[in-house]
Amino acid sequence: MITIYGMTNSGNCYKPRLLLAKLGVPFRHVETSSGADGTTSALFLAKNPNGRVPLLEFDDGRVLAESNAMLLHLAEGTRFLPADAYNRALAYQWLFFEQYSHEPYIAVRRALLTMPHRAADATPERLAATLAGGKKALQVMEEQLARTAFLAGAELSVADIALYAYTHDAEAGGFDLSAWPAVTAWLARVAADPGHVPIRWVG
Amino acid sequence: MITIYGMTNSGNCYKPRLLLAKLGVPFRHVETSSGADGTTSALFLAKNPNGRVPLLEFDDGRVLAESNAMLLHLAEGTRFLPADAYNRALAYQWLFFEQYSHEPYIAVRRALLTMPHRAADATPERLAATLAGGKKALQVMEEQLARTAFLAGAELSVADIALYAYTHDAEAGGFDLSAWPAVTAWLARVAADPGHVPIRWVG
Repeated sequence: MITIYGMTNSGNCYKPRLLLAKLGVPFRHVETSSGADGTTSALFLAKNPNGRVPLLEFDDGRVLAESNAMLLHLAEGTRFLPADAYNRALAYQWLFFEQYSHEPYIAVRRALLTMPHRAADATPERLAATLAGGKKALQVMEEQLARTAFLAGAELSVADIALYAYTHDAEAGGFDLSAWPAVTAWLARVAADPGHVPIRWVG
Repeated sequence: MITIYGMTNSGNCYKPRLLLAKLGVPFRHVETSSGADGTTSALFLAKNPNGRVPLLEFDDGRVLAESNAMLLHLAEGTRFLPADAYNRALAYQWLFFEQYSHEPYIAVRRALLTMPHRAADATPERLAATLAGGKKALQVMEEQLARTAFLAGAELSVADIALYAYTHDAEAGGFDLSAWPAVTAWLARVAADPGHVPIRWVG
């Protein structure tokens, strides 16, 4: 059985759990904190030298880091990876957009505002920069979702799972989603797709 | 013919050029600045609402953003994308590592130190943070490259092309690569692979 080292509250860790739930694939969740008992322990660093969760471990002990890499790997041959080469390329595009232009603003601002150990980093400059970057990311999504039902085309794909993870909880980071109606309607479509589970579901 | 909107000096823009050179696929380069005449022009934003280069445009007018998405798309069916599913997943892993844990430190520090329009952002705090993050990224690469010839296994893949782009020029960002001997040896292996071209080559 697949093991996922992760945090119940993390959007990045939610992504592989949500896909596995939709695929009906069982897994074992190991709650892993960001401290010396978790991601910075020698045991964990031996598995992932980058010291981050989620980390996926297969039965044979091989491991895979990076939430969006897990999505692409686990979705191979399923409806969650577009069969058409161009739509598949667009799914790749949105996965990289998520990690570079969305998560560092929307997820980070949520952490700054809600996690006690990040409070010291929540300077006015940092809050302003993450607000501006997050609004820009939501606007880029809005323009796409005003034209297509899902990010990579007419069908839900791994791109939607990845971007749902932190967008659905963006209000915790101080983003008022009513300003982006196409994004708001898309969130409801993703949540209505068969097999949906909430962020804290761990199998 | 494929068109790439990009900057000759950008590592992200170098990635698709390097892969297309290796594949022997011709393309047209359109130098695109980051100002109002380039990525923030209405014409460009209509093609890529995220306002970033590189941007790839196909003959039929369809476009694709995100350098690493271009690598995955263009490499499909070639030696640059591992045939084995797990090695392919590792290539995905390193591509996301590059955009989240490497580029924001190593590429950004190079920009802070070498680009006049970024000088105002080069505060001591920013330089220290990008130095620490970049050293950590190089150490993660070092641990892998001490074990395997290339990042996703025994063969060169898109992961190596992506991480070569900014690592080979990391000294411009103040990183002394002699501290990472496996990375240094790997840079030479990547540059020796058939079809290699330097960063400013535009076809």
